[in-house]
Amino acid sequence: MASMIELIQNGGVTSPQGFIAGGVYSGLKTQESDTLDLGILISEHEANLGAVFSNNSVLSPSVTVSRSRATTGKSMGVVANSGCANCCVGSQGEHDAIEMTTLASQHLGLGETDLLVCSTGMIGVELPMALIRQNIGNITPHNDGGSEFARSIMTTDSEEKHLAVSLDIENTKVIIGGCAKGVGMIHPNMATMLAFITTDADIDQKFLQDATKKAADLSFNMISIDGDQSTNDTMLVFANGGSGSATIDEKSPYAENFQEALNYVCIELAKKMVRDGEGAKRLIEVIVDNAPSLKDAQLAARSVSDSMLVKAMVHGNDPNWGRVMMAVGNSGAKIEESNLDIFINEIHVVHEGKAIPYSIEAVVNAMDVPDVSIRISLNTGNFNATAWGCDLTEDYVIFNSAYST
Amino acid sequence: MASMIELIQNGGVTSPQGFIAGGVYSGLKTQESDTLDLGILISEHEANLGAVFSNNSVLSPSVTVSRSRATTGKSMGVVANSGCANCCVGSQGEHDAIEMTTLASQHLGLGETDLLVCSTGMIGVELPMALIRQNIGNITPHNDGGSEFARSIMTTDSEEKHLAVSLDIENTKVIIGGCAKGVGMIHPNMATMLAFITTDADIDQKFLQDATKKAADLSFNMISIDGDQSTNDTMLVFANGGSGSATIDEKSPYAENFQEALNYVCIELAKKMVRDGEGAKRLIEVIVDNAPSLKDAQLAARSVSDSMLVKAMVHGNDPNWGRVMMAVGNSGAKIEESNLDIFINEIHVVHEGKAIPYSIEAVVNAMDVPDVSIRISLNTGNFNATAWGCDLTEDYVIFNSAYST
Repeated sequence: MASMIELIQNGGVTSPQGFIAGGVYSGLKTQESDTLDLGILISEHEANLGAVFSNNSVLSPSVTVSRSRATTGKSMGVVANSGCANCCVGSQGEHDAIEMTTLASQHLGLGETDLLVCSTGMIGVELPMALIRQNIGNITPHNDGGSEFARSIMTTDSEEKHLAVSLDIENTKVIIGGCAKGVGMIHPNMATMLAFITTDADIDQKFLQDATKKAADLSFNMISIDGDQSTNDTMLVFANGGSGSATIDEKSPYAENFQEALNYVCIELAKKMVRDGEGAKRLIEVIVDNAPSLKDAQLAARSVSDSMLVKAMVHGNDPNWGRVMMAVGNSGAKIEESNLDIFINEIHVVHEGKAIPYSIEAVVNAMDVPDVSIRISLNTGNFNATAWGCDLTEDYVIFNSAYST
Repeated sequence: MASMIELIQNGGVTSPQGFIAGGVYSGLKTQESDTLDLGILISEHEANLGAVFSNNSVLSPSVTVSRSRATTGKSMGVVANSGCANCCVGSQGEHDAIEMTTLASQHLGLGETDLLVCSTGMIGVELPMALIRQNIGNITPHNDGGSEFARSIMTTDSEEKHLAVSLDIENTKVIIGGCAKGVGMIHPNMATMLAFITTDADIDQKFLQDATKKAADLSFNMISIDGDQSTNDTMLVFANGGSGSATIDEKSPYAENFQEALNYVCIELAKKMVRDGEGAKRLIEVIVDNAPSLKDAQLAARSVSDSMLVKAMVHGNDPNWGRVMMAVGNSGAKIEESNLDIFINEIHVVHEGKAIPYSIEAVVNAMDVPDVSIRISLNTGNFNATAWGCDLTEDYVIFNSAYST
């Protein structure tokens, strides 16, 4: 964490000033204790908006409606449901997405197009609008509702994913909070995931959009659970200026501080998602350094973190670095085989493209920890990138061969 | 199978006239009954050669030596070993690959650069040349040695993979035989696989190279087991004219017949590989039809056959077609969501992008067979493509988390 950023205990999307949120159970999912499936997050004043959406060609109307409204660069907040992706349901999907925002806006006394909408869950079934109509009025957004909102967007997630940090902007304390969901169908370029970031910093809208894209590229676009990306991914950043801080635009001396803090929040949320990956027992951090370009570093890091054989090898504590070489070689990154060094949890296993003598038992033991780091030095430049993945386990297969039936 | 092609019972690479082959156990692998790990396939007369190699940036010197020699378009045959990939071992690898061909050539009285070389197995360990020097002289290539050779290239394969077909070229019967290995690290673009095709047809070298590439693109480049591709892939086609048939070049009236028969042999070998995929219990055939271009059809078919979530769904007999939509949407193919139709084992489950009422139980039952077909009609053109994959099982994970240790 950059030194000027402080973590807020139990922080989330309602930690910044002027944001309220809440959630209810409306019957979209099977109820267990604490199950919520419909939530609202709003800003007390209109916020500037940064947004990134799935680039899948098959898109949920919840995405297309939000994407269209997001072009104004302004929003009051978002209504979100889990349990149903509102996807592949024909024209009914757009109708339902719009109705969901209208119902929430009427309940809260907001304008018709003030809210965005997100959906996550099964593809191919229509939103049960009767249940939504019946229950949406029971949501009471409040100052402490971040955790409720985070819970209402969970699908197969085993826990809520949220955090918040504070930083100083010209002696004013500003807060960035965030929450996210998604533990399957996760792959670079906005996979089945929703992420909501709030801040009471005052951020110029154009800069906010650029900062949002940058943060997504370093975090949610560098994780992979199963290489599949979904139809509903959405990342929204709301900046409402509630802290009274100076406005930050791209030329502000604080632009970089804000970007770093935003990156930090997004990367931490992304890592929480990977750690909670379906069936996953380990976090795999793949660092590629000394690459000839950022693109080469990112390609190589993603290829390794996405390889099924590397994922399976980590599951078995197996320092089978030939698979890492194979994945780097496949990545499309510019490499010189005879320059490559590989480190597994900082134990040097390959030097100049060849195995170096190491104790296999020591590496097996070193790998038997929750976080496994694989570092590949390309040694042909000065660029670095980090990607995150999870191990591939029998549980992933069991889980995903019996999801809908 | 095209009507003019006839399958030869128990056929293989020595079915065409003028090809002999053999194999021995030399100690490169743990010996079980019938284990062979070193083989030679040669033509009695110099053959025209078609060749395709891995496009991984990390390559075994066995590949680079063969690729260099293949530029002449002529070859007498190939020496191949399993148990060791001869990859990521520094300059020793090239030295050993060349020595292996020299030893085989001396044994058989051939010229120094007459043979190509292929290796498959563990990455990062040097070829045990002492064992190869000691045992290579025990290989006695013979007319009936196709099965021995096929067995000597197996790694984790559970069975030999070979076949042969005959066809008529101007009233002369010609034969095409083939064998292949590879059940993991399999992905489009020549994944860990070796394939050797022989024919006694007389094929112009330029046409042979083009036909080889075309056949690879329709077969080995359309299969996926785990999305990983290897450092050692090689497909070699030897045409020695031993049948006395007329020469076939691109303008020959028989060019298409030969291409079809070659495609058939390669597709059958590719399907054998997928069916024997590590841990696999099912063959998944993904057909994309009515696409706006061949490239769109291929992109969509590969994306579906390669999706971990689709593979897991087939394992569980789960008609979760939302995952098929997701994979088609991610493929980069040009699609219109509202035009898509999906059929699972020819049961119509999606029409114009939406679920249609079907009995889930009927589809679950229909999927409970060894071969599962998923057909996606894009309904925006006239192009078709087929890709093959296998299901993802707990056994794949168990197998691949304990391979080297």
